Amino acid sequence: MNNKAEAPSLFGVILAGGSGTRFWPLSRLQYPKQVLRLLGTESMLQATIERLLPLIPLERLIVVTNASQEDVIRLELHKKNWEGVKLVIEPLGRNTAAAVGLAAASLPETAEPAVLAVFPADHYIKEQEEFLAALTEGAHWAAQGSVVTFGITPATPETGYGYIQAGAPLDETTTARRGVRFIEKPPLTQAERFLAEGNFYWNSGIFLFRRDVLLEAMASLLPDLYQGLQALQGDPGPAKVTEIYQDLPNISLDHGILEKISDFVVLPVNLGWSDVGTWGALRHLFPQDAQGNVTLGRTVSLENKDCLIYAQDRLVASLGLENMVVVDTPDATLICPLTKIQEVKDIVAELNRQNMTESICHLTVERPWGEYTVIESGPGYKVKAIVVYPGKRLSLQYHNYRAEHWVVVQGTALVTIGKEVTRVHANESVYVPVKTPHRLENQSPENLKIIEVQTGPYLEEDDIIRLNDDFWR
Amino acid sequence: MNNKAEAPSLFGVILAGGSGTRFWPLSRLQYPKQVLRLLGTESMLQATIERLLPLIPLERLIVVTNASQEDVIRLELHKKNWEGVKLVIEPLGRNTAAAVGLAAASLPETAEPAVLAVFPADHYIKEQEEFLAALTEGAHWAAQGSVVTFGITPATPETGYGYIQAGAPLDETTTARRGVRFIEKPPLTQAERFLAEGNFYWNSGIFLFRRDVLLEAMASLLPDLYQGLQALQGDPGPAKVTEIYQDLPNISLDHGILEKISDFVVLPVNLGWSDVGTWGALRHLFPQDAQGNVTLGRTVSLENKDCLIYAQDRLVASLGLENMVVVDTPDATLICPLTKIQEVKDIVAELNRQNMTESICHLTVERPWGEYTVIESGPGYKVKAIVVYPGKRLSLQYHNYRAEHWVVVQGTALVTIGKEVTRVHANESVYVPVKTPHRLENQSPENLKIIEVQTGPYLEEDDIIRLNDDFWR
Repeated sequence: MNNKAEAPSLFGVILAGGSGTRFWPLSRLQYPKQVLRLLGTESMLQATIERLLPLIPLERLIVVTNASQEDVIRLELHKKNWEGVKLVIEPLGRNTAAAVGLAAASLPETAEPAVLAVFPADHYIKEQEEFLAALTEGAHWAAQGSVVTFGITPATPETGYGYIQAGAPLDETTTARRGVRFIEKPPLTQAERFLAEGNFYWNSGIFLFRRDVLLEAMASLLPDLYQGLQALQGDPGPAKVTEIYQDLPNISLDHGILEKISDFVVLPVNLGWSDVGTWGALRHLFPQDAQGNVTLGRTVSLENKDCLIYAQDRLVASLGLENMVVVDTPDATLICPLTKIQEVKDIVAELNRQNMTESICHLTVERPWGEYTVIESGPGYKVKAIVVYPGKRLSLQYHNYRAEHWVVVQGTALVTIGKEVTRVHANESVYVPVKTPHRLENQSPENLKIIEVQTGPYLEEDDIIRLNDDFWR
Repeated sequence: MNNKAEAPSLFGVILAGGSGTRFWPLSRLQYPKQVLRLLGTESMLQATIERLLPLIPLERLIVVTNASQEDVIRLELHKKNWEGVKLVIEPLGRNTAAAVGLAAASLPETAEPAVLAVFPADHYIKEQEEFLAALTEGAHWAAQGSVVTFGITPATPETGYGYIQAGAPLDETTTARRGVRFIEKPPLTQAERFLAEGNFYWNSGIFLFRRDVLLEAMASLLPDLYQGLQALQGDPGPAKVTEIYQDLPNISLDHGILEKISDFVVLPVNLGWSDVGTWGALRHLFPQDAQGNVTLGRTVSLENKDCLIYAQDRLVASLGLENMVVVDTPDATLICPLTKIQEVKDIVAELNRQNMTESICHLTVERPWGEYTVIESGPGYKVKAIVVYPGKRLSLQYHNYRAEHWVVVQGTALVTIGKEVTRVHANESVYVPVKTPHRLENQSPENLKIIEVQTGPYLEEDDIIRLNDDFWR
């Protein structure tokens, strides 16, 4: 088969919701794993989309996320000029069955039934050619009515993944095999047996099926979900949507549907795949030193063994650690043995219980025009370092409660304050009084950097009244 | 004896040099352990001086430190209005024999020979009354010509301290005993035997002797040191002083003199003493939770055991750690098992080797007028948060290379720029051009806080030309 030929009825559904807990403190509720640049310069989501584009054009990609992550996902797409991707926003996360169902229901019925290929937004796949070949073959079987799953040929007796047992090949022309059953994360002895026996594959979370096949299965196996999705189609208004969504069954596509279908297809694949599910899994994707350590950023590391040490900003010095993960971000540090890494979610739960914002957002926040970092705050003031990318401008806006002092430290700003428009150069400053419409723009080919000192009784992001904006806000 | 009576010929010599390595990253070369506020609101040095004042007035206290720590030591004294304390500055650190010798040589000969009591600046003593009683008694024996050491009654078979073996009591009126010998840090079995036997005491580093007795002992036991000190008396100029000092023997008072004197006195004391020599020793001075953890600052700590976790600024989250120290400061974090804590010096050595400034100074720097914190820096700019204490002012100064933008965010500043003097209130800003004399003053009863944005090609602290200063600079 020709990998490069687009399959005309193939749609990609990318599941990009998440809670931002597993890679805390690098991930946050508003900056989840799928937008992290863990491996290279692209986010996991961007890499997932890039990987599909040879077979599925942007207009047939659907990204499903939830309201608290909408901004950052939209921004990730915007950075690549991928506004053509369809974005489906859940009012809140309700697991993968609901997310896939919502994506399927959002597609119009067509003469040739659509085939949906479902991908997590945050997995790593090394073998691009093999991936596209498998996708083409999977779409072929799905078009004929099968539910298809990618089964990853296991390399180790991994106890952190679910497994799929495969039976006989479908026919002599294909490596695709009949599915026998799904198996939950096994104990080590069982995983070792699976590896030795050879008919067991890791469940990759990648599935293909026809839209009509999925919806029929949903109607019979998850009727509450099916009816909820039907009720959402009539555009019942945001409050009602949230209400309906809250009542949907909180179940994964695997548990709710796939494991209950007797007839499915396993496509064995060797993709160099990793779900990058924990800091420990990430450690295996980086070159290690002779003692098994991965150190990233500004670190001094003496006598450590099998550690992952990541310093995003400041210096992290460590000595005599073994099998430990240390992750340092500008406002929070995590230290934890790799064996306990699954419990990082307990830390995030504790942060939420104590209303600590370190579980929600970072000090540096990306915006479509650039980014800002809160570098200092105290009673009645807040200081930000603001970067505006070349050719970009912030919205025309005003604030009800705060004044702003801007000092340009790099580049030249085109500044609107009230009716006046001036150029402000490095080592010059301007004052933006409270309630005065203003705009900051960078018309130069280089980054503009300013230090903003806000003063006033209320200094939160929701005191921005936008009068005009270049973006979707 | 009456504790409160001042002993007329008693001088206190406080050894306040140090390398700032043991408590890194909290201590730095320019901010050593003795100025840390590890226990309460006073620095170790301040607490050491307060402890002596009932018996020794300020004018008879001598603090010995070295050039790289002179500023911060002077500041510590200034904060308490202790300018009356005599400050002896070594051009560089040359261990305690030289430091004590220099202090002794700096005193004029008097009719009644001076008794010197030597104290480390960075030890903890809980029992103040007992301490003063012991000091009075020690001074009594020292005045009669003995070399006296405080022997701490051991509570545990500690292997981290040196020991002193004591013999028979001097007479029936005193608990003071003849000294037998000094013993280096012993292995555990020996320490256990010492504890069981009962005639062994921890070497506290507190010694008393007459000035003439010390200088005579030095002349005979450390003639190179003695002659070097003699050469320094003629005020040979700074370059020569440094040269002489570099050539002095680098040896401790214990090794160089005390251990070689056959005739000395041990004064057994129960002072609730700790040398606070490591993070592990510090842990024992704080209340521990049921799992043996001490957590200070903004921490989330789950399933930890016997750990010391100190978050100075940001959030430190940890999980499943055992017997570990985590110390987080605004620019550097240390993670290390308590069993390896002695090796933190290796980390500092590595920082020095790599020319990393995190071994030298903090982002927040104290000044006699207040403090500043570097909150952001980049090519051509630096941002500081500056606090000026009530009634204080910075020097009248100018800079050859940088301009400064000041935004007042709290209080009211009296600002001099060139010939103009104005009041600048919160939410107002001023601009200080390059090479223009300027001064910042807080005449109000509350702290003044400003955000300073510096711009220019060179932004270091040595580009300050002071025209007038309220302090010693």
